[in-house]
Amino acid sequence: MTDTFKIPTREVRLTNGETIHLYETSGPQGHDVRKGLPKLRQPWIDARIARGDTNFSQMHYARKGELTEEMRFVALRENVDPEYVRSEVARGRAIIPANRLHPESEPMIIGRNFLVKINANIGNSAVSSSIEEEVEKLTWSTKWGADTVMDLSTGKNIKETREMILRNSPVPIGTVPIYQALEKVGGKAEDLNIDIFMETLEEQAQQGVDYFTIHAGVLLRYVPLTANRVTGIVSRGGSIMAKWCLTHHRENFLYTHFEDICELMKRYDISFSLGDGLRPGCVADANDEAQLSELRTLGELTEIAWKHDVQTMIEGPGHVPMHLIKENMDLQLEMCHEAPFYTLGPLVTDIAPGYDHITSAIGAAMIGWFGTAMLCYVTPKEHLGLPDKEDVKAGVIAYKIAAHAADLAKGHPGARERDDALSRARFEFRWDDQFDLSLDPETARKFHDETLPSDAAKHAQFCSMCGPHFCSMKITQDVRAYAESKGVDVEAAIEVGMEEKAAEFRAKAKV
Amino acid sequence: MTDTFKIPTREVRLTNGETIHLYETSGPQGHDVRKGLPKLRQPWIDARIARGDTNFSQMHYARKGELTEEMRFVALRENVDPEYVRSEVARGRAIIPANRLHPESEPMIIGRNFLVKINANIGNSAVSSSIEEEVEKLTWSTKWGADTVMDLSTGKNIKETREMILRNSPVPIGTVPIYQALEKVGGKAEDLNIDIFMETLEEQAQQGVDYFTIHAGVLLRYVPLTANRVTGIVSRGGSIMAKWCLTHHRENFLYTHFEDICELMKRYDISFSLGDGLRPGCVADANDEAQLSELRTLGELTEIAWKHDVQTMIEGPGHVPMHLIKENMDLQLEMCHEAPFYTLGPLVTDIAPGYDHITSAIGAAMIGWFGTAMLCYVTPKEHLGLPDKEDVKAGVIAYKIAAHAADLAKGHPGARERDDALSRARFEFRWDDQFDLSLDPETARKFHDETLPSDAAKHAQFCSMCGPHFCSMKITQDVRAYAESKGVDVEAAIEVGMEEKAAEFRAKAKV
Repeated sequence: MTDTFKIPTREVRLTNGETIHLYETSGPQGHDVRKGLPKLRQPWIDARIARGDTNFSQMHYARKGELTEEMRFVALRENVDPEYVRSEVARGRAIIPANRLHPESEPMIIGRNFLVKINANIGNSAVSSSIEEEVEKLTWSTKWGADTVMDLSTGKNIKETREMILRNSPVPIGTVPIYQALEKVGGKAEDLNIDIFMETLEEQAQQGVDYFTIHAGVLLRYVPLTANRVTGIVSRGGSIMAKWCLTHHRENFLYTHFEDICELMKRYDISFSLGDGLRPGCVADANDEAQLSELRTLGELTEIAWKHDVQTMIEGPGHVPMHLIKENMDLQLEMCHEAPFYTLGPLVTDIAPGYDHITSAIGAAMIGWFGTAMLCYVTPKEHLGLPDKEDVKAGVIAYKIAAHAADLAKGHPGARERDDALSRARFEFRWDDQFDLSLDPETARKFHDETLPSDAAKHAQFCSMCGPHFCSMKITQDVRAYAESKGVDVEAAIEVGMEEKAAEFRAKAKV
Repeated sequence: MTDTFKIPTREVRLTNGETIHLYETSGPQGHDVRKGLPKLRQPWIDARIARGDTNFSQMHYARKGELTEEMRFVALRENVDPEYVRSEVARGRAIIPANRLHPESEPMIIGRNFLVKINANIGNSAVSSSIEEEVEKLTWSTKWGADTVMDLSTGKNIKETREMILRNSPVPIGTVPIYQALEKVGGKAEDLNIDIFMETLEEQAQQGVDYFTIHAGVLLRYVPLTANRVTGIVSRGGSIMAKWCLTHHRENFLYTHFEDICELMKRYDISFSLGDGLRPGCVADANDEAQLSELRTLGELTEIAWKHDVQTMIEGPGHVPMHLIKENMDLQLEMCHEAPFYTLGPLVTDIAPGYDHITSAIGAAMIGWFGTAMLCYVTPKEHLGLPDKEDVKAGVIAYKIAAHAADLAKGHPGARERDDALSRARFEFRWDDQFDLSLDPETARKFHDETLPSDAAKHAQFCSMCGPHFCSMKITQDVRAYAESKGVDVEAAIEVGMEEKAAEFRAKAKV
């Protein structure tokens, strides 16, 4: 087997002749939405079925020492050794979410020794949105850089929406199956049971969902720990399970049947995203006993999942002030045995509804630096309403910033290449290169053109911010250019300290 | 003298009967722009002139042990002991920028043991904008929370624009006088000299400018250190002075005449904002030798300024990846003897032009937590063009978030009150309270109403994000409410572990 995969990448050709390759998530383009994407992974999966495999988990193969095509694909994408990918997956420190019934997906890896990833949530609610809108949000999310997408639909047509999303998604799709299970019992949390839940899992597994958020750590005895919180329980899944536990005065059935769930997961290679049902919903509740008790339980569940070779990541908060973020990250690594952390934000303050993509990008960048493997985006509509397309884009871009800032801070190999290329373009007034290398070329170009719209301005050695006289970059370049053209080395001229050279420079200066 | 000042504050009356007072920067309202704001500080200043003072610096008074009205005013605003304010100003660890010829300003303090402040830059360039637009940007900036405003005009009508801004500004105004000096010599940096510069300072001092950015640390021998940088010199003032130094092969005249400048500053009580002319313009150049050499020189200049009792703060970068931010902050505290740090961002990545209010809010929040006293905002137009009103607002809000997040992380007394009040409102579905307590009530309300516009929705126990069945807050409240109404203590019910209680709860549950 040779590595002849066509790795998704975005090639940016610069006007100075250089070419930069960027990580790309938008998948194959130009396909009919009704037919779906090509099934890239089908031959790999068929071969495994043909030889009679029963545990399809990437972790299972990794632990057996088998290098799968998914691992090789990921290694090329991340520019690392395939064997390193295998060892990280075997150790549980990274996951490759890849349901064998979602062959359209382009393999990607989530682990703190790889590029930091981001997730975008889409999905309708009982109040608004249609299937078409949700598929469009999927395409839109991956266009701007979402590495995975969660379909959190709770309204009508849950199943049909999910089917359309999966068949058209080049990225892994996650869900929170308890939402659909709850719909099946008419919204009455107390009527839920493990059979209805397993039936829902099977149904979603068959469609190809790549990872399931499962709130198995919300234990009966933890619920009272939330009683004196400022905002109680803010996870939807967490509150549903808490209500069930209280009503029946019994232990969470997701916890008591966890091994049954593992059995199902491995037949498809669905990854766990162990839900943090007791995550803090405000800075006052951060890192409290409820949250940390659940985290410890998620660590125990991780060990059980790993016993079955089921890939596992751990969900995290939420709202956390900056000084408590590192503590949270360190505790997660310790309690959950380095299973990848997957956090929502965290939001570092509660006072900016309408701007929570920003309050949370701050926390996300920091926790990404400290070791979180994937950042779940937050849109400007958080706490206020269902995000529309523009909100989705705003959330994705804010999180691409956070993830990339984390990669830079971690010193991830090659991460700075794009920054340096863009900064060189900026310094040399290669405006089009600057735009093309940016996270959102359309917006950068539009902002520039608002004040200096002409084509000539694309070659101008200034912008409207400072005007021509005050452009520091222009002045610096003028000085350098003059020195070079006259054979005067700026450094030498000063170091030698010859007044004559300065006089000569002064006399000839035209700029 | 009693503290009978009317301290600016925004009172938010909540629907549950509580009242919250928020720090307010927008100044007296409803005044005619042509007449300007009332001269709040005039009587205090007149008394000092009457008794023959010659050094009007707050630091001078503080060191003599005199508690000025400005210190008392600030103490009330910050809810601290006036004597503490005096001691911090005396020690140089905080400044109260307050030119005696800007009596309209409401005193505020910049120091790391006080609330983190933010600055908004306005000002026209040769390419665009008018006086009216700039005054409107001033009012707009302070409406959203700018603590100081810098007028960076470089285009036509510099002086008239500044006059209108000062007479209408309730917050301290800063400038970069070298810009106007350069206009006086027709834009030719090499024609600048100390006389033209001092004349410019005097002119701006007479108008009432509260702090001057002065790039006195750009020494001749540091210029070659920038030769191999990715983006050279990116400060406008820095590049002007570097060009002057190179052309004349002489030391920066702002450095050689620094004591003359101090003499002028103290006659008005203008504060130094020692400019970082060699700040990094990309992450590749962060914390390099050029930057840190200049920083050390700024520390030496601080000692000279303090010898004259001139209040001083230090400007900082720029572009800095997250892992280098703390080092920068720690070096500043050490090299500059704890003089307040005033940073632009820093931007934690270079790849998001169009979103640099976000890339920089991440760095700003962190450096604020680590000890920066004031954060200079960055707007979405940074690197691309002159910000318009909406950009100014976006920049201010992003920086209010960063500053507040820093206050929270520092454990600043009372900082969490607003978060907690908003979160309680959120949990109790007091939508209007949630909006009113937010940084931008208009946007929060608009976002909510986009999907659920009716008045009834303002009282609904859900929003369109999750719909009624899936609102975790509603479910949590339902559980709590049921428990209370039935006399069932949720915690007790579980702890005691009586199955009957659970059965009873189950039987009676209506929700």
